[in-house]
Amino acid sequence: MQEFKIENLSTELDEKILNKTNNKTKPLGSLGILERIACKIAKIQSSLSPEIKKPTVVVFAGDHGIADDGVSFYPKSVSYQMLYNYMQGGAAINVFSRQHGIDFKVVDAGVDHDFEPELNIINRKIAYGTKNYRFESAMTKEQCLEAIEKGAGIIEDCHKEGCNFIAFGEKGIGNTSSAALILSLLANIPLEDCVGRGTGLDQAGVKSKYELLNEGLSKYTGKTDDALEVMTYFGGFEIAMIMGGMLKAAELKMTLLIDGFIITSALLAASKINPKVLEYCLYAHKSNEKAHISMLNHLGAEPIMDIGMRLGEGTGAMVCYPLVKSAVQYFNEMASFEEAGVSEAVEEAASH
Amino acid sequence: MQEFKIENLSTELDEKILNKTNNKTKPLGSLGILERIACKIAKIQSSLSPEIKKPTVVVFAGDHGIADDGVSFYPKSVSYQMLYNYMQGGAAINVFSRQHGIDFKVVDAGVDHDFEPELNIINRKIAYGTKNYRFESAMTKEQCLEAIEKGAGIIEDCHKEGCNFIAFGEKGIGNTSSAALILSLLANIPLEDCVGRGTGLDQAGVKSKYELLNEGLSKYTGKTDDALEVMTYFGGFEIAMIMGGMLKAAELKMTLLIDGFIITSALLAASKINPKVLEYCLYAHKSNEKAHISMLNHLGAEPIMDIGMRLGEGTGAMVCYPLVKSAVQYFNEMASFEEAGVSEAVEEAASH
Repeated sequence: MQEFKIENLSTELDEKILNKTNNKTKPLGSLGILERIACKIAKIQSSLSPEIKKPTVVVFAGDHGIADDGVSFYPKSVSYQMLYNYMQGGAAINVFSRQHGIDFKVVDAGVDHDFEPELNIINRKIAYGTKNYRFESAMTKEQCLEAIEKGAGIIEDCHKEGCNFIAFGEKGIGNTSSAALILSLLANIPLEDCVGRGTGLDQAGVKSKYELLNEGLSKYTGKTDDALEVMTYFGGFEIAMIMGGMLKAAELKMTLLIDGFIITSALLAASKINPKVLEYCLYAHKSNEKAHISMLNHLGAEPIMDIGMRLGEGTGAMVCYPLVKSAVQYFNEMASFEEAGVSEAVEEAASH
Repeated sequence: MQEFKIENLSTELDEKILNKTNNKTKPLGSLGILERIACKIAKIQSSLSPEIKKPTVVVFAGDHGIADDGVSFYPKSVSYQMLYNYMQGGAAINVFSRQHGIDFKVVDAGVDHDFEPELNIINRKIAYGTKNYRFESAMTKEQCLEAIEKGAGIIEDCHKEGCNFIAFGEKGIGNTSSAALILSLLANIPLEDCVGRGTGLDQAGVKSKYELLNEGLSKYTGKTDDALEVMTYFGGFEIAMIMGGMLKAAELKMTLLIDGFIITSALLAASKINPKVLEYCLYAHKSNEKAHISMLNHLGAEPIMDIGMRLGEGTGAMVCYPLVKSAVQYFNEMASFEEAGVSEAVEEAASH
């Protein structure tokens, strides 16, 4: 695999960044998480005037062999049908990215369908879906490496176009199953605690999904703590591509706005390749998919919102985006006490 | 007091509203709180195509006699100084309302300062601050009624200008003290559990604030469950004005986006005058002011965000606004399964 040279964030501006937020005309720390977001982006950009440039969401799509076993509430064909919906602008991800003026790209990482070239779906197809890991490895090691490389290439292209702020989305019927297995292996959590309702299974559906995944897990003979091996065996093409894209984004010092369960599973895998990737991440939300919180906790991540979303596509990141923008804007635009001629805290109170 | 004729929300469109959100191309219920917001606004507007028109935030400002006792981290003069900051566009509320294209108005409800007319602060001054309720009633009953009426008038003006979506903001050094007393009396919660850090008191500061407020409370001989009496004795001019504005907004079938601790205390009082006002409300966030959650619970309110904010001014509502907008937009713009030609849930899964 190509090496990703990710730098640790510099601490050089830390004091100046803290002073800048503390001197704004507001009670100390009263913007809560927004202050931590602003300071983080300032650190990532090594700048006291951070900017979000050409914010972009890239949705990676792929099909999953396991979907034939009925692990999802929806048939496999919904993956490709939803891509048509994206290109017509009718999906949730379209509505929200449009609302905030965010560039929207769709990548075919390995959907079981041939798309017409005029649709403007970026073609990086590895194969027509992964194999069913109940019986065999979802992909070959070469395919996994190819996906990582292609994902990195996509993000490099975004960066060349002037983007410094990236969100990842996904589409792939069956991909919460991959994410559950990745979580179970790489974070060492019992599979049962990782399997959730996905698109809407009931209790019996979740149980049957668990049993199918456990069958696959019991046949796995690879290393349980090797992100590449785990991704090769249980991943999706879209998840592997996102993993590569994330590592490249961090290398390029972009800010990553992390979405829900699937996207965080890609980050979990990426962090086992190079933990420095985490320094460049903001976490949009705690998804309603039950094991997302374990994944976030494992990464030491603080989600910004918790509004019961579990739609996928990158929608959590899109809905959260204006909060991140608010953080950057207060940091750049609010007056300081001095600039506004407003008195600071009372002496006696301050000296308590 | 003028009577506010608030209608119960109609249930006539309930089924159609539910069908509309359920048929969108997404797993059932997967937009979480956003779906409840969209359905609520559709109900308020009795429309399957709800619209947010001329969204407006009105910041009401007033001074408090109790502020002379040092219940706040900041001197009283910060109230009027911050109004200059607002009119120069340098405060948090400016940044966030500007970000989202929200109309911004400032009302002098009773600040201890004379503002130059050219500043465009709407002058509804009742007096140069309330009296100190440690010793006597903060206002007279006539003043309280005047404030309610003036608040209602302001919102009526917004409505005439085409606004159907309103947020309230506040400025008034010392006003978390009023809010704490209103909460304690009207929700019957021990005062100690209602007093918090406000703009940033430490533990000793909170204790001293509690003791000062308790002194006032012990002298109070009015009814403990009468919103008008409680508001007259312990309120601020800005809080009473907001209370009147809220009742009028509900009468005019506007959607109210409720901010933090102070604004919710005005709503709590308004709801004791007419509980139907609550049917028109969305709750932007759980503030970091400790007793806000008790207030929300008392009202049966579900806050949308919990991001550690406690700045006031209406900033929580402003930061939350794009989430509400996302709700309206998915409801209006997303394709249905039929429109997009996407398969619905698998039969077997659906029949589980």
